[in-house]
Amino acid sequence: MDTDALIEWVLERSVSLASTGEAPPLLAKAIHHAVFPGGARVRPRLCVAVAAACGEADCLPLAAAAGAAIELMHCGSLVHDDLPAFDAAELRRGNPSVHAAFGEPMAILAGDALIVMAFETLVREGARNPLACLQLCRILAEMTGSPRGIVAGQAWESEPVINLTAYHQAKTAALFVAATMSGAASAGADPARWRGLGIRLGEAYQIADDLRDVLLGEDVLGKPAGQDQAHSRPSAVEAFGLEGAFGLFSQSVEAAAAAVPDCAGAPFLRQIVAAQAARLVPKSLMQRVA
Amino acid sequence: MDTDALIEWVLERSVSLASTGEAPPLLAKAIHHAVFPGGARVRPRLCVAVAAACGEADCLPLAAAAGAAIELMHCGSLVHDDLPAFDAAELRRGNPSVHAAFGEPMAILAGDALIVMAFETLVREGARNPLACLQLCRILAEMTGSPRGIVAGQAWESEPVINLTAYHQAKTAALFVAATMSGAASAGADPARWRGLGIRLGEAYQIADDLRDVLLGEDVLGKPAGQDQAHSRPSAVEAFGLEGAFGLFSQSVEAAAAAVPDCAGAPFLRQIVAAQAARLVPKSLMQRVA
Repeated sequence: MDTDALIEWVLERSVSLASTGEAPPLLAKAIHHAVFPGGARVRPRLCVAVAAACGEADCLPLAAAAGAAIELMHCGSLVHDDLPAFDAAELRRGNPSVHAAFGEPMAILAGDALIVMAFETLVREGARNPLACLQLCRILAEMTGSPRGIVAGQAWESEPVINLTAYHQAKTAALFVAATMSGAASAGADPARWRGLGIRLGEAYQIADDLRDVLLGEDVLGKPAGQDQAHSRPSAVEAFGLEGAFGLFSQSVEAAAAAVPDCAGAPFLRQIVAAQAARLVPKSLMQRVA
Repeated sequence: MDTDALIEWVLERSVSLASTGEAPPLLAKAIHHAVFPGGARVRPRLCVAVAAACGEADCLPLAAAAGAAIELMHCGSLVHDDLPAFDAAELRRGNPSVHAAFGEPMAILAGDALIVMAFETLVREGARNPLACLQLCRILAEMTGSPRGIVAGQAWESEPVINLTAYHQAKTAALFVAATMSGAASAGADPARWRGLGIRLGEAYQIADDLRDVLLGEDVLGKPAGQDQAHSRPSAVEAFGLEGAFGLFSQSVEAAAAAVPDCAGAPFLRQIVAAQAARLVPKSLMQRVA
């Protein structure tokens, strides 16, 4: 089984365990809808890539489980972010968002269930390696809750005064940091050395997202376009213009490549960073604007 | 430090760690509002009582941490249950509910943060005992998520067809089961033997809650009264009448006392069960109806 299939296998298993026996049927459907079909699974694949770059092959199942846990957390946060109280988005990955399909109560509960499921997945799949498992739980909690996780990041959008650095690091970078640090922890390497790469990748991803929100249509995005302006959210495009944002994106991608710590798989990881950058912001997009 | 103070100390520490440094200020306030001042802290005290009944004194700090984690989960679930999408309750523990005080976005996020904080608390406070810590995480996840936890319990209220047994066990009993099983796990005892006591206590608590919802006013409850009828929720009073519900309550309390497994502290635990029953449904209340 390749590692992408391994990630999907863990996700399938976790979602199906939540749907067994006496599970409320609509809740089970809403949870499944939030996780499948998935997006690009960027975070779990990053987690596995880091583990492969600094460890042996036998650490990959744990890295895939850690990546799947991060992906479940990511899916849960999308469900809550799409709610009427936040983005009121009716579309996600080209399908109705969870609250559009199942109603607001089910969307709140499906998001809650996914947060729990993320920790449950780590604890179940990591049982044979208790110390690494607890370290992975700690990383996931730090990058999800308050003060530094994605929940805090989303909260900044409802604060009267916004701390922009804290906002970006928590809202987008946190789960990239979770991915790089968890990959290292799964391989028995020091997670702290991998924090910087996650922050840089998160920055690049955030700027790419701002660019795509302005330049692409709902059909390509699979979600509503023009949302940053509609919700008055801070955006690199708004702050620096299209050309400035492209420049920042290229800088962030270079900084990410430079932030890959020394390890056996560093060249491979730098290739992945470049490939992801090209996927997110294709040359054709840059040329269209130029 | 007595164990009640130890529970509050862990709660204070967890909430304060979520509020440090770059935490979004309103989110930090909303989280604090959800946890302090607390209710009767029934679940964490039950967790510690079970640990004391079947273990040595040195297991009490871990039991207090496990109890605090369950209480954080309980507080998070109250914040989400009070939302307009569910009970639309403006009052909780005699104060404005979190969404009434801080708005709906902050209430959703504070609930999310509390779910994460519950696991973070376990992992932080249990670090010196990795195997017990992972067992406690598993118990907490099972009793919180889907198919058997409080999230599933709340979801049953939004399902077109309701499984009443699954609903009651998941909605109310689950965190009592988490408390009894976690108390045993903290003491190195077999958690499975303590599941039955949690289920019986949950039943008794649910019936008491149904009775109090009908018989007491908002001033005593600290939350809106008459909510079961207002939200067409299944209620023992509606199903069996006041007298029938009182009878069921007495039976459940007896069943709970009988469900205490053999252990050094069994007589002490049975006393606690009786005292809690008298606190929840005082004789004066029974007499008023008779």
